[in-house]
Amino acid sequence: MTAQARLDSTARTDGGRVPASALRVFTERAFRALGVPEADARTVAGLMVEADLRGYDTHGVFRLRQYVNRLRDGGITPAATVTTVRESAATALVDGGNGLGHLAMKAATELAIAKAREAGIGWVGVRNSNHAGPAALYVLPQTRQGMAGLCAAVGSANHVAPFGGSELLLGTNPLAIAVPAGRQPPFLLDMATTNAAMGKIKTLAQRGETMPEGWMVGRDGKPLTDPNRRDEGFLLPIGGAKGYGLAMAIGLLAGVMNGAAFGSNVVDFSADTTSPTNTGQFVAALSVSAFADGTVFGQAVDQVFDEMRACPPLPGHEPVRIPGEGREARAARDEAQGLALHPNLLKELDAIAGELGIAVL
Amino acid sequence: MTAQARLDSTARTDGGRVPASALRVFTERAFRALGVPEADARTVAGLMVEADLRGYDTHGVFRLRQYVNRLRDGGITPAATVTTVRESAATALVDGGNGLGHLAMKAATELAIAKAREAGIGWVGVRNSNHAGPAALYVLPQTRQGMAGLCAAVGSANHVAPFGGSELLLGTNPLAIAVPAGRQPPFLLDMATTNAAMGKIKTLAQRGETMPEGWMVGRDGKPLTDPNRRDEGFLLPIGGAKGYGLAMAIGLLAGVMNGAAFGSNVVDFSADTTSPTNTGQFVAALSVSAFADGTVFGQAVDQVFDEMRACPPLPGHEPVRIPGEGREARAARDEAQGLALHPNLLKELDAIAGELGIAVL
Repeated sequence: MTAQARLDSTARTDGGRVPASALRVFTERAFRALGVPEADARTVAGLMVEADLRGYDTHGVFRLRQYVNRLRDGGITPAATVTTVRESAATALVDGGNGLGHLAMKAATELAIAKAREAGIGWVGVRNSNHAGPAALYVLPQTRQGMAGLCAAVGSANHVAPFGGSELLLGTNPLAIAVPAGRQPPFLLDMATTNAAMGKIKTLAQRGETMPEGWMVGRDGKPLTDPNRRDEGFLLPIGGAKGYGLAMAIGLLAGVMNGAAFGSNVVDFSADTTSPTNTGQFVAALSVSAFADGTVFGQAVDQVFDEMRACPPLPGHEPVRIPGEGREARAARDEAQGLALHPNLLKELDAIAGELGIAVL
Repeated sequence: MTAQARLDSTARTDGGRVPASALRVFTERAFRALGVPEADARTVAGLMVEADLRGYDTHGVFRLRQYVNRLRDGGITPAATVTTVRESAATALVDGGNGLGHLAMKAATELAIAKAREAGIGWVGVRNSNHAGPAALYVLPQTRQGMAGLCAAVGSANHVAPFGGSELLLGTNPLAIAVPAGRQPPFLLDMATTNAAMGKIKTLAQRGETMPEGWMVGRDGKPLTDPNRRDEGFLLPIGGAKGYGLAMAIGLLAGVMNGAAFGSNVVDFSADTTSPTNTGQFVAALSVSAFADGTVFGQAVDQVFDEMRACPPLPGHEPVRIPGEGREARAARDEAQGLALHPNLLKELDAIAGELGIAVL
């Protein structure tokens, strides 16, 4: 069945919306076809669809193509074992066994939460991992346990030059921070340390749109706005030297500290489908009860949120938003109504189905 | 003796350089005159001069005027007791007793290091504190113990609006991260979450210089470049919504989590010299040995530094620098040769001497 045929079919008649459950099953089958054990395939598929449900559409099922290519070509180990190689009361170092990054990061998140329950905080470094989707996935579980979450990763390709330099030595090195509230959904920041993330630029390319100035410059230092020419330049860090500093701090703490790649030894996750990436990440959990009464804290956070939202907007601006606002509601809506996947992504998923000999979505 | 007379005097003949030891003694005497106990006065003076030696000239002795006014008017408690009010294996909550912020933060840093020695990481929240100088001071000690340091603070006045909003509800909320290297000085990032820090703008005002566009906008959203009109607008966060998110995350983790001020209950440290600020901060120590072999780690960090520096600069740019680079050398030089304080600052210190009835610098 062609992509067009699928778009015309029953499952997609409602504006092309795909049920989340169908997308989970499809993604799980793709991984199964590539030798990923059943439980692992289900875990990763669940996290990938959760990313889409929460609106991280550049880091959800959109990435299946990359994972498929790497699993197929040997760059990712399908049946990987995640092990804890170092451990102290409040820290651990997890080795992802070069499996899908979601597996190592899910284990790391659970371990960080367990440590925080005993020691107030848990900080878990990860090495021999891979791209794991949006960092947001690994800070939200903390908020459901009355904890703040912190997560960062060495980007899966170098798209950034050190400040004032002209070589690609840094990734977008994302950082996520979540803090639970009282009656409201949690604060949730998930940001690249660059003005734009490469995932967003790839989506623009897929959609045939252009980038605003300020996202990328060429190696001559001049603005680059065609997302298809993204390999000819580099992403600009937020705040110039500050974003460079943040990206480097994350590279040292998520990469070097864990014995993972950072700098020139980072493997381009998309361009090279055969070499292990030795991706480094860290995830932390910080127990609210180690510092405050949970109820008092929740009320105080709610109050801060309300205060920010009540701030009159600048002329021509939307009302002030809390980072992460609307994502919970969006997830509930799309879980009920299905996900509006872009036709190009649907085409790609159909191609994957054909390659792997599994049923189309 | 007038400031001009002092500039002509022996102590300042060498380009107006002031011996660090003389500046320490002067600062300590100022605090002693205001009722700060001897050991505390010495501690704070030492940290303030260390800030100047390392080049944080907007956060060193430049701030003495603010501290003096608050100690004099009751906003800061001179003889304060720093207490640990909550504690777990890897965390603690420290109450600064409304004393000089340096005292609470020094205690918090030492406690975080002690926790990290046992548990791999230590995270210490601080409340009832005050402005404590540059956050860099509270991440460098970690690097001397083979640990990474992390520190953030709720800014001592609200100079920032939430993204798209028009009310001052956020501070510059600085963040510092230090990571030890091998044979090289540590990585050291100390940044405001805004394109410019207010301290830098005050220095420009003191020097009669203007600000570049992008640092501040007026309440009408238009650029503001006169540093003397800084109260008519607000600072712009790095990366727009991202810097806003970072500032808010720090506000929640350094402020609300510790029962400290954040949002509309932040007291302007300069404008109000009588109300306790309930300043919130946090400081963390992360032991390298919990994750890696120290020697291997040091070599890997050195290699990353070398690689970044070897990156060819963009046309018209200086060579690439490592965050914090040159600060150790500068401190050693100025400790030996004296500090080149700005004439306006010297004038201010002379005025303080007059007010407090202590010997001029």
